[in-house]
Amino acid sequence: MSRVFRLIISCPDQVGIVAKVAGFIAEQGGSIIEANHHTDSVNRWFFMRHEILAESLNNDLDGFKQGFEAIARDFEMQWQITDSARPKKIALFASRESHCLADLLYRWHDENLPGDIACVIANHPDLEQMAQWYEVPFHHVPVTPETKPEAFARAEALVAEYEVDVIVLARYMQILPPQMCADYAGRVINIHHSFLPSFVGAKPYHQAYERGVKLIGATCHYVTEELDAGPIIEQDVIRVSHSHTIDDMRRQGRDVEKTVLSRGLRYHLEDRVLIHGNKTVVFA
Amino acid sequence: MSRVFRLIISCPDQVGIVAKVAGFIAEQGGSIIEANHHTDSVNRWFFMRHEILAESLNNDLDGFKQGFEAIARDFEMQWQITDSARPKKIALFASRESHCLADLLYRWHDENLPGDIACVIANHPDLEQMAQWYEVPFHHVPVTPETKPEAFARAEALVAEYEVDVIVLARYMQILPPQMCADYAGRVINIHHSFLPSFVGAKPYHQAYERGVKLIGATCHYVTEELDAGPIIEQDVIRVSHSHTIDDMRRQGRDVEKTVLSRGLRYHLEDRVLIHGNKTVVFA
Amino acid sequence: MSRVFRLIISCPDQVGIVAKVAGFIAEQGGSIIEANHHTDSVNRWFFMRHEILAESLNNDLDGFKQGFEAIARDFEMQWQITDSARPKKIALFASRESHCLADLLYRWHDENLPGDIACVIANHPDLEQMAQWYEVPFHHVPVTPETKPEAFARAEALVAEYEVDVIVLARYMQILPPQMCADYAGRVINIHHSFLPSFVGAKPYHQAYERGVKLIGATCHYVTEELDAGPIIEQDVIRVSHSHTIDDMRRQGRDVEKTVLSRGLRYHLEDRVLIHGNKTVVFA
Amino acid sequence: MSRVFRLIISCPDQVGIVAKVAGFIAEQGGSIIEANHHTDSVNRWFFMRHEILAESLNNDLDGFKQGFEAIARDFEMQWQITDSARPKKIALFASRESHCLADLLYRWHDENLPGDIACVIANHPDLEQMAQWYEVPFHHVPVTPETKPEAFARAEALVAEYEVDVIVLARYMQILPPQMCADYAGRVINIHHSFLPSFVGAKPYHQAYERGVKLIGATCHYVTEELDAGPIIEQDVIRVSHSHTIDDMRRQGRDVEKTVLSRGLRYHLEDRVLIHGNKTVVFA
Repeated sequence: MSRVFRLIISCPDQVGIVAKVAGFIAEQGGSIIEANHHTDSVNRWFFMRHEILAESLNNDLDGFKQGFEAIARDFEMQWQITDSARPKKIALFASRESHCLADLLYRWHDENLPGDIACVIANHPDLEQMAQWYEVPFHHVPVTPETKPEAFARAEALVAEYEVDVIVLARYMQILPPQMCADYAGRVINIHHSFLPSFVGAKPYHQAYERGVKLIGATCHYVTEELDAGPIIEQDVIRVSHSHTIDDMRRQGRDVEKTVLSRGLRYHLEDRVLIHGNKTVVFA
Repeated sequence: MSRVFRLIISCPDQVGIVAKVAGFIAEQGGSIIEANHHTDSVNRWFFMRHEILAESLNNDLDGFKQGFEAIARDFEMQWQITDSARPKKIALFASRESHCLADLLYRWHDENLPGDIACVIANHPDLEQMAQWYEVPFHHVPVTPETKPEAFARAEALVAEYEVDVIVLARYMQILPPQMCADYAGRVINIHHSFLPSFVGAKPYHQAYERGVKLIGATCHYVTEELDAGPIIEQDVIRVSHSHTIDDMRRQGRDVEKTVLSRGLRYHLEDRVLIHGNKTVVFA
Repeated sequence: MSRVFRLIISCPDQVGIVAKVAGFIAEQGGSIIEANHHTDSVNRWFFMRHEILAESLNNDLDGFKQGFEAIARDFEMQWQITDSARPKKIALFASRESHCLADLLYRWHDENLPGDIACVIANHPDLEQMAQWYEVPFHHVPVTPETKPEAFARAEALVAEYEVDVIVLARYMQILPPQMCADYAGRVINIHHSFLPSFVGAKPYHQAYERGVKLIGATCHYVTEELDAGPIIEQDVIRVSHSHTIDDMRRQGRDVEKTVLSRGLRYHLEDRVLIHGNKTVVFA
Repeated sequence: MSRVFRLIISCPDQVGIVAKVAGFIAEQGGSIIEANHHTDSVNRWFFMRHEILAESLNNDLDGFKQGFEAIARDFEMQWQITDSARPKKIALFASRESHCLADLLYRWHDENLPGDIACVIANHPDLEQMAQWYEVPFHHVPVTPETKPEAFARAEALVAEYEVDVIVLARYMQILPPQMCADYAGRVINIHHSFLPSFVGAKPYHQAYERGVKLIGATCHYVTEELDAGPIIEQDVIRVSHSHTIDDMRRQGRDVEKTVLSRGLRYHLEDRVLIHGNKTVVFA
């Protein structure tokens, strides 16, 4: 993979944004590998993502940033430029169920995850050996109703220590404190084992079984204070039938959970997800 | 297609049901084309469907029924046997949107719907010409808040007159009166334009757009008094993205609506759907 | 739908194309509704599509074209700009099977096909009434081994007379003469009832049944002289099982055939398909 | 999971098979958990699978077998009865690519594979550590053109030593000798990284890229002497576009390969696959 810079922009829509940005990139000698635009015509908002070949620029990243600052100001842009040579650092929060954790660790080991897994933080010790095989630091931080504040303080301290960019709740089964949701807005990704907004909260497979749905699903979303209500990144479903017990759903659901989580996380790691209000633009 | 009898059974589970039923069919010389069983081990209930080649029986249908009665009593069966040579009669209830109506009429015309469309009943006159081309009687029965009781009395009279077996709400957009839901329990099929239980009620595509889901769906279900809460027969979804407006969703959703409705209706027409509580067993 | 111009470009890849094109559009006051780029890094070729809001331009289409000519020359572009207010004219070639024809006619009638169906040309008279209901001229042009040259001369004359932009072989079942394939390169779309390159040629469902595949499919592609080997626009599949007879496959396959054809045709009508060698770039 | 016996039968079709078999099971007190039948009306052949609750039988397995022998003879059945308490033993044949191996080992570790992985046999040493973590014996059996006969003799010796029931080629990349294909007919499962019969042989993703297909797939099949031509157990596909390089296809394809292999293997391990000629009946 060649080193690329990813320029991510959102701003009020107006004529000339693309021309201005593309013109600036061209001045810098930038070779565009991939480009995506989206105009939200309801909210009159504009979204844009470019992948630029790093070696093509006749300037370094700081130079690029400085030059771009003026354009950004003119168009009132929210923007960032990231460097594929500095992959995002990930903390995996886990509990006892291993399928999502195992899947992400394996993808990373297989050099098939565009980020770095910095540590695993789990409220149970069960998955320590798995993390160890992949040579990822494992921290057992138990959570009880009484110790919840201390536990999350400890978790946040670890996240800070490892300079984590994104927290992934890989079937973590604990609800983050509101303050933590706020502090890490747009940087905590959860996998919920239903096709949201159906079956919010606990035991979604039980709920699905009771309702007699013919498809079950999984949803990867950013965590916000309201449970299972944050911006959705990715979803998928699989077919079930009357012959599926709750256990069958749980077993089959694991496959769709890990697929959806790994896909959603990949989008985030490659800066393909732009949050706007409670929705996402995903340049997949 | 050969003529077949379809024997549909549900009863409390116990050892020996299959043997008894299969033994009886064999005694009658019955050649089994297709057989399906399901044991609901939670509720200890048993479901069964056989397709028997009509010409293989050494008895007529009445003889078969009489003989079977004793077995049915012993096992406390709910049962019926239907004849593929007497396809179910369908009333299509429609409004202004044509996609589901057009799809079902075409499939019927193409000899690809195992039932007979007896009439179209619509609360707007728009689709009359379409029904006429297919030579299906069209009845315009307007519904206003004031005339609702008379309108549904008229609709029910038509249903009785045409000796209709199943009512299909092909995007009918009107809520049936509770009494009618009760009278036709298990015989009114609706298509709802969302992946239920998400987005019950009005304007599901608007709701889906607001929530920012990445898949939209449709649900074919039996109508009960509680809106969009009846037993689900079939569901499916298609992918959408941030670039889809509500209109795009509505347009693309039509394809999944008509697919799901035609599939669910086919199951019903072939007696593949067994209702138990608020859920279905579908021997697809 | 607002009126838009669609600017389609392909050319050798180099730095600065996007900037130049976007700069020109901005100079013209053009508001970009949708933009797509693709760089084929193997062949070093660049592809681009813009939708520009017609009313935003401070120039008419001819003015735009003249101004753009210089850029196009500099970058050795193959390019065109089309106007959504002048939808492409379609000739549907049909035979006896009605499902693809019925589907396209209905979508057009439902104002859900971004083109105009100018005529139906069929080698059998069976579908005349269907075309008539939609008020589309129907021409019965029989084809026999002996009359093939005359028949296709007649068909081509009709295509010319109706000023047809694109020919759709809606299960036409006849092989076009090589000269016609060459003359209408990139303007004849076929639906083949298999997942190409599997099961080229006659009776693909028989072939699929014999091989025991677990999915059957359909392929929408441009017609070239070599049978079923032209550039693929769209494909899809559905699941089958051991219980499906060839007739079941044929029946179920119809749904995927018409879906794939209508999707592929839509892409073509909206100028989303760029042919390069024997492959397509589809800005879906 | 309760212990079950699985009774698998195929025989020439005739009236009375189901009655006879179900009658016998009922005499033995057998509680049927799941039952599937299929009549191949083209070849007039009948297929049947029952899952019987072990504890419900008033006889042991040997008693059951003895009693059933007479029925089997009368109907010229090929049959077997297997015991879920004696899961099949699996040898995984691997090479350098880890994704299928890792997936199957993890599913087994997660108690989500209804079989026992007895050993890994690989022609490269790369995956030894992975096998070790799961505490599965790993045998490095290099294969070169010169040593091929000795290498496969060694592999067969290991298979015999571990009393292996089924060999899984988990991206093994070597062609088994014809004699071995014959000796283990119906007991060697391969995953091919294309939607067969498209792209037989080497480098299917290259072939898919060249042809410009819009979906790529994977096929799980029994190995026969003719390369990639054995009976198909399971297939699936995922969508690709013009923007996918061969490397992208290879990366994304891994997900469908491992899904299809694990599904197909599960069917085999649960005795859900009946081979007939070059096709399978899969009671999924």
